[in-house]
Amino acid sequence: MSPKITAHRAPGTRDFLPDEMALRERVRRVIEETFRLYGFQPLETPATERLEILTGKYGEEADRLIFKILKRGEELESGKASGDLADLGLRYDLTVPLARVVAMHRGELTYPFKRYQIQPVWRAERQQKGRYREFVQCDADIVGTSSVSADAEIIALTDDILQRLAIPGYRIHINHRMLLQAIARAAGVADARFLEMCVVIDKTDKIGLDGVLEELGSKDFGSRIIQLLKEMLACPEEPLEAMKFIRNHVDEFDAGRKAIEEMRHLFADLTALEIPERRLAFRIYLARGLDYYTGPIFETLIEEPKIGSITGGGRYDNLIGVFCGETIPATGTTIGIERIFDVMRELNLFGEVAAASAQVLVAVFSDETRSESLKIAAELRKAGIATEVYLEPPKKLAKQFAHADKKKIPFVVIAGPDEVSRGEVTIKNLSTGEQRTVPRNNLAEAISHNSA
Amino acid sequence: MSPKITAHRAPGTRDFLPDEMALRERVRRVIEETFRLYGFQPLETPATERLEILTGKYGEEADRLIFKILKRGEELESGKASGDLADLGLRYDLTVPLARVVAMHRGELTYPFKRYQIQPVWRAERQQKGRYREFVQCDADIVGTSSVSADAEIIALTDDILQRLAIPGYRIHINHRMLLQAIARAAGVADARFLEMCVVIDKTDKIGLDGVLEELGSKDFGSRIIQLLKEMLACPEEPLEAMKFIRNHVDEFDAGRKAIEEMRHLFADLTALEIPERRLAFRIYLARGLDYYTGPIFETLIEEPKIGSITGGGRYDNLIGVFCGETIPATGTTIGIERIFDVMRELNLFGEVAAASAQVLVAVFSDETRSESLKIAAELRKAGIATEVYLEPPKKLAKQFAHADKKKIPFVVIAGPDEVSRGEVTIKNLSTGEQRTVPRNNLAEAISHNSA
Repeated sequence: MSPKITAHRAPGTRDFLPDEMALRERVRRVIEETFRLYGFQPLETPATERLEILTGKYGEEADRLIFKILKRGEELESGKASGDLADLGLRYDLTVPLARVVAMHRGELTYPFKRYQIQPVWRAERQQKGRYREFVQCDADIVGTSSVSADAEIIALTDDILQRLAIPGYRIHINHRMLLQAIARAAGVADARFLEMCVVIDKTDKIGLDGVLEELGSKDFGSRIIQLLKEMLACPEEPLEAMKFIRNHVDEFDAGRKAIEEMRHLFADLTALEIPERRLAFRIYLARGLDYYTGPIFETLIEEPKIGSITGGGRYDNLIGVFCGETIPATGTTIGIERIFDVMRELNLFGEVAAASAQVLVAVFSDETRSESLKIAAELRKAGIATEVYLEPPKKLAKQFAHADKKKIPFVVIAGPDEVSRGEVTIKNLSTGEQRTVPRNNLAEAISHNSA
Repeated sequence: MSPKITAHRAPGTRDFLPDEMALRERVRRVIEETFRLYGFQPLETPATERLEILTGKYGEEADRLIFKILKRGEELESGKASGDLADLGLRYDLTVPLARVVAMHRGELTYPFKRYQIQPVWRAERQQKGRYREFVQCDADIVGTSSVSADAEIIALTDDILQRLAIPGYRIHINHRMLLQAIARAAGVADARFLEMCVVIDKTDKIGLDGVLEELGSKDFGSRIIQLLKEMLACPEEPLEAMKFIRNHVDEFDAGRKAIEEMRHLFADLTALEIPERRLAFRIYLARGLDYYTGPIFETLIEEPKIGSITGGGRYDNLIGVFCGETIPATGTTIGIERIFDVMRELNLFGEVAAASAQVLVAVFSDETRSESLKIAAELRKAGIATEVYLEPPKKLAKQFAHADKKKIPFVVIAGPDEVSRGEVTIKNLSTGEQRTVPRNNLAEAISHNSA
């Protein structure tokens, strides 16, 4: 018999089988628990959004990567005539859906509204290693306050998660969009080209600073911006000293003064939150690629492996207003769980993860004792012990032991006719090979005791 | 300022805000824990599948409800010419993706492979109350054994979950596709029209038995099938007695004899698994709407509210073979978490769910003491206590208490200049109004003690 359909996944997607799920869930649990520890509460939004909600928020390059959903029925027919074939898109990030939710429910929320969201997003990226078309994002955002203490809390949360996951050699890079704006103005870059400039500068990690400066030159941003960026790179390492140094260049612009003041507040808060300076870095060339950022921006880079940023976020005070006509400030971050997962695997940080399917396999001695085996399984499960029954027609016990071993199940329980008639069961410990017989009533206790 | 874009959700979709998430997560946790207790392990698959994987598995009606994703770039342009606009679809259920995964990984799995999967599916249903276009399914399946004990285990799992959720007045209806097949043959229904017959019979819950019989008549299935179904409805209530009764009608067909034998095995196992008979029912008119079922089928109905089946599943021994050319038997069920959730809300089964965002709010007395408040928050979080800091510019303490109260946070910690200088902090219990001052070092302990 030949297959009617070849089994292939959609390009750029992955399946997660149980062993991999065990690792993914471990990382996810740490992230989620830390979110809760900081007072963030869960939100979930649908995978599909109306196209007009998604487009025009991220920038042109990103808009092209939105997966679109074909219209249906009559709408598809009339859409074919007009060339307007899609009405919905798949979620591209978790920030725009949050903005939509806040706009729709703004009267019901208590501010600051602190929400986390762990859901997949979809991007029609060109296929390459480490790039997926569906991947999970973990976002935490604080909505409804323009206090920089909220940005500090987001950064502290990021640091805490990475500490709990024991990620080595990372640093959280921090900058401020208004600082870049003031620099752009000081260099005579037109306001209309500011976001374009940010997209170029944001490539520093990918193409290096020289590459960025070259691209700025080739795109006619003028030599002053290149000169200015170079000068500022000479700023002191210590953040408050760096602010003093930068201040001279941007003090004549409102945006510059505001940015300097906020950065001071931010770094003071981060010190109070006890984040060591070595894990933080002010980086004037950090820009973040998305259009919607307006204030402090931050991302985490690690020394090894070279993998790009593993977290990224910032303040976006104008995005929610697009949906409701009322300015509602917000800040937040994405914890890049997929990249963190890749890092942890590459650095061998997972250690042993026991992906046993159960604690006990109840063997089936013969067709006649099957009912007894099922009863035992029901009892063990009632006692909270994860239990499988040998489901296939009864085979030799050695085969059933081998099956348990393959599934990493540590104990096999046997109730043959002799044991049944005596009201007993036999427990075999597969790691030691030891076998002992206990009264049926003591079984759950004996297993719990043995496992502890 | 007026909004640039009106904030609307995609039709038929929902947002889940924190209070609702708390309820949903509670139900989900019970389901997931029970899956694990029975030795099922997690699997996740991508939301998008190639269209050829999805279509032709569920039946024609269902195929029309698959959301399709527009091709991109050059492929879209050439697709426009040929009218072939979509290459991918959104997952319609979790069974077909499982079949694809097993086909792709069949050499690596240990059988029986017991997997659970909790993920959303998408269906372009006409909009009506209680019908959503995106909803979560919770599936458990056993792959690689044709033993009816696997079907019994799936039914026991279903019953256990509903018991743990304290759902009242439900019954798991059970039938066998081969029994229906034998009846169809006995009634002279052409094999080619068997699946069509199942689709009609499956509507019993929606349009009643009379409606079904009428539709069978109007679709020219002949009077014998109607007569036969009516006769069988008179079968005894007790399942083994019912089998004896039915047997006379179907004994001449291989399918009938096999179905009867399997049903006896199944009900014997269910008794051994200690499921009381009142929660089980043999129902000859149960058919299940999907094409892929081949053996025992089952679904759970409840008396109140009238909401359709809250779980549904069955054996599908030929589906995986479509993808790999090798017969790999399988059985499983969907736990309808969305309907269960609706039932629990309608029957008021949730009781009080505290959706507090945190255990403690650290108040900020003044700008000067903000750093101290941040430090206290960092300490409490290190001690595992979910903590928020008042992020807005400091306001009167009464306002900060009101904020905590609104967020259902039970304790406010205050560190004013006096307390700071004495190395103390004040804890206010918002439910009692009580206030006490403790040494700073004892804070975490005092909070844990107070909460216990």
